[in-house]
Amino acid sequence: MKEIEVEQVAESDLDDPVFVEGLPGVGHVGKLVAEHLIEETDSTLLARVYSEHFPPQVGIDDSGVANLAHAELYAVPTDGRDLIVLTGDHQAGDNTGQYRLSETFLDESERLGAERVYSLGGVPTGELIEEYSVLGAVSSEALIDDLEAAGVEFRSEEPTGGIVGTSGLLLGLGSRRGLEAVCLMGETSGYLVDPKSARAVLDVLQERLEFDIPVEALDDRADEMEEVISKLQDMEAAQSPSSGEDLRYIG
Amino acid sequence: MKEIEVEQVAESDLDDPVFVEGLPGVGHVGKLVAEHLIEETDSTLLARVYSEHFPPQVGIDDSGVANLAHAELYAVPTDGRDLIVLTGDHQAGDNTGQYRLSETFLDESERLGAERVYSLGGVPTGELIEEYSVLGAVSSEALIDDLEAAGVEFRSEEPTGGIVGTSGLLLGLGSRRGLEAVCLMGETSGYLVDPKSARAVLDVLQERLEFDIPVEALDDRADEMEEVISKLQDMEAAQSPSSGEDLRYIG
Amino acid sequence: MKEIEVEQVAESDLDDPVFVEGLPGVGHVGKLVAEHLIEETDSTLLARVYSEHFPPQVGIDDSGVANLAHAELYAVPTDGRDLIVLTGDHQAGDNTGQYRLSETFLDESERLGAERVYSLGGVPTGELIEEYSVLGAVSSEALIDDLEAAGVEFRSEEPTGGIVGTSGLLLGLGSRRGLEAVCLMGETSGYLVDPKSARAVLDVLQERLEFDIPVEALDDRADEMEEVISKLQDMEAAQSPSSGEDLRYIG
Amino acid sequence: MKEIEVEQVAESDLDDPVFVEGLPGVGHVGKLVAEHLIEETDSTLLARVYSEHFPPQVGIDDSGVANLAHAELYAVPTDGRDLIVLTGDHQAGDNTGQYRLSETFLDESERLGAERVYSLGGVPTGELIEEYSVLGAVSSEALIDDLEAAGVEFRSEEPTGGIVGTSGLLLGLGSRRGLEAVCLMGETSGYLVDPKSARAVLDVLQERLEFDIPVEALDDRADEMEEVISKLQDMEAAQSPSSGEDLRYIG
Repeated sequence: MKEIEVEQVAESDLDDPVFVEGLPGVGHVGKLVAEHLIEETDSTLLARVYSEHFPPQVGIDDSGVANLAHAELYAVPTDGRDLIVLTGDHQAGDNTGQYRLSETFLDESERLGAERVYSLGGVPTGELIEEYSVLGAVSSEALIDDLEAAGVEFRSEEPTGGIVGTSGLLLGLGSRRGLEAVCLMGETSGYLVDPKSARAVLDVLQERLEFDIPVEALDDRADEMEEVISKLQDMEAAQSPSSGEDLRYIG
Repeated sequence: MKEIEVEQVAESDLDDPVFVEGLPGVGHVGKLVAEHLIEETDSTLLARVYSEHFPPQVGIDDSGVANLAHAELYAVPTDGRDLIVLTGDHQAGDNTGQYRLSETFLDESERLGAERVYSLGGVPTGELIEEYSVLGAVSSEALIDDLEAAGVEFRSEEPTGGIVGTSGLLLGLGSRRGLEAVCLMGETSGYLVDPKSARAVLDVLQERLEFDIPVEALDDRADEMEEVISKLQDMEAAQSPSSGEDLRYIG
Repeated sequence: MKEIEVEQVAESDLDDPVFVEGLPGVGHVGKLVAEHLIEETDSTLLARVYSEHFPPQVGIDDSGVANLAHAELYAVPTDGRDLIVLTGDHQAGDNTGQYRLSETFLDESERLGAERVYSLGGVPTGELIEEYSVLGAVSSEALIDDLEAAGVEFRSEEPTGGIVGTSGLLLGLGSRRGLEAVCLMGETSGYLVDPKSARAVLDVLQERLEFDIPVEALDDRADEMEEVISKLQDMEAAQSPSSGEDLRYIG
Repeated sequence: MKEIEVEQVAESDLDDPVFVEGLPGVGHVGKLVAEHLIEETDSTLLARVYSEHFPPQVGIDDSGVANLAHAELYAVPTDGRDLIVLTGDHQAGDNTGQYRLSETFLDESERLGAERVYSLGGVPTGELIEEYSVLGAVSSEALIDDLEAAGVEFRSEEPTGGIVGTSGLLLGLGSRRGLEAVCLMGETSGYLVDPKSARAVLDVLQERLEFDIPVEALDDRADEMEEVISKLQDMEAAQSPSSGEDLRYIG
């Protein structure tokens, strides 16, 4: 195997598509959106990307068949702007690999005609949250107004530590190539998979790229997560000692 | 030394052999089976594989002679299907090395005529177990029926985190080469070297590849481990405070 | 992107400049000095250095625009010796990257005419300090007298563990190239960003390179930090149990 | 700088020398012996070896002059067998670097005429010890008798985890080159720099290679360490609660 190997599966006939990335990360926000886009549209797998920089690992599907660690590019047609969606189960395990894979992803998306990049992710708040804001970062100040109009917030020098991983690099390397690049980050506690945050990011994406797909599946997953959280909170409450009694009292 | 160096020791005259891998891993299950196959047959060392990706280390044999970290390929003739068995004391220490060594192992086994790959390992359950199931993963769904007939279990999306290391890569990379690849994983607590789990995997392998070798040595090791576990349990019981007495009682 | 990529932004017309490095490190001492030099002079950005060895990351500026991890070289004219100042938000994440980036920095500074190198950093004392000494290390014993005259201290085999990172390598690699190389290290507790330590290093640098720039901004930051420390100390005092009372007393 | 760079300092006129390695490791045993050999003989620095695989670091000498991380080769003439001694402050920070540097060390020593390799180190026992045994490992069984005659012990499959780092690789890679290679490991607690263990290794080396150098300096360092240990033991004893009093007694 070469350092990075792109296995072409099908040809795309998308018209002026936008490249959308959703790999695993904080709250799995980006990946949830990417998978939702793939599942709720008449999507086509375009290519698999394998690499020595991915973990040395196979995943197992529901019938027991193994697949080597890889990322996938899908053609995702919509009623508005067409998308090329990148998703997968892994990011590269080393800095150099992160850079080289991100360059490969941009090479492929440019080859498929994309001149705009949306990388999706989550930004951790460290606490359970009520209102799901979507934070933005861009390759160029000129992109901000339209994004703010779609509900994206821009905050000075946030996220504080910058944006790490593929989402950050697609923005940074995309910008150096002269592409229009945007990173949308849904606020999330960071502790759990967060379909609500994914929904907030999807809303912005639909608004900005003028497409409309069903969101029920994502909302159902959000409801399921709410139940899980609620159960966890009950369990925690049950484990705390009842106040008013001194268990260490010695008479 | 080159990045990877294959030192040919002898020529193989095996007929249509199956490649079997058993490197160190969970419960040392794969390695126990591989060593048993080598010891209980008229096996021949075919090649040693050295690599900069192995730990910078030598092992010491029983007379004090050192040998540089390496993996070994053996010709293992049986009364049924002949085997090429890979074993050793190490896996590569980095992702890239894991990929490149696995490719080398497949190159060698293909050169020796193998078109089928069985990688062996353990899958940790986290608790001491009574019944030693063998879990399977395959390169192609068509392989499942025959394996189930030989006692292998297939469970949807298990092992949960996929299969990591050489066992996983031989399956994933073997599949991409068009080889028939199977990973057999013996259930094991994961805390101890587990000859019982190895025995379960060996049973499946013998059934599936229609060969028959003595298993007494493996059973003896299993008995020894049972004694060790039993002693550990006695020690643990002795250390726990006897119930009914409050040792922290202050009168 | 290549392994290391130098993006030339402007040409320098500095006369016989000295190369000054201030990347992030202990107490951010070097970076504080470098940024102060850039802000308090009529500085010009000369080049950006990108690399696969930097973290896979973008920083976000105050309007939400992302910039790929990089280091920056500035032309910094002064009333005395002109400077080329290197700063940034990152050091390389691996040994090889540290070596190759340091070589690139030296290549660039030599190309711009610098034959002398000052790398700046902090040396941790582990406790809050009163007097901010500046420790020195040099490529050649002949440089010591003039530095001692400017207030630099030289202590046998200190810092004990040597100098790690870009500051150390510019000294070590610069020395091997035959450059005059000096590392100035401000003593600092090591727990906090330390503008006072930076001020001490700046004083030495001004004295030694005979230039004079306003220091008020750095002193203001030092005052702000003093307030932060003072508040932290108050908080700590408030949390300690009042002496004289035995809280675990059982009557 | 290249990946590995050998800076030749002087030519050797040693006759049929033996290559002796003493880099930092367990108890600094090997390094203590190497430094003692260099200091107690009319030794000459032959070469410095620099590498991107060493830590990105400079050391500081007693006058404040920095030196880039490197290893050193010395010509060490004795009244018996001449030696080429390798020492330094670092081992490579990655597996590949360990392999490539060890190959470079062997290349150099072979170029200088050495056909025999002695790598020196410590083997940790985990407790303070009375009798300082020296454990051996060899490239070939034929070497064992003469070493046992010189007081070296050989124990089956010990050290248990093999020999890690440059000492192990010189043995393993040296053996693959057809060199006579020996690793001598002084038993040491592993907690402290151990000149007594170094003395034991030196004794074996002198006996085996038939040379004789003063050992007083090493014995003096051993006496100093004994005092340090004795003080540490006193401090520990003073900190332990005096027996006979129950400090947690509640009347």
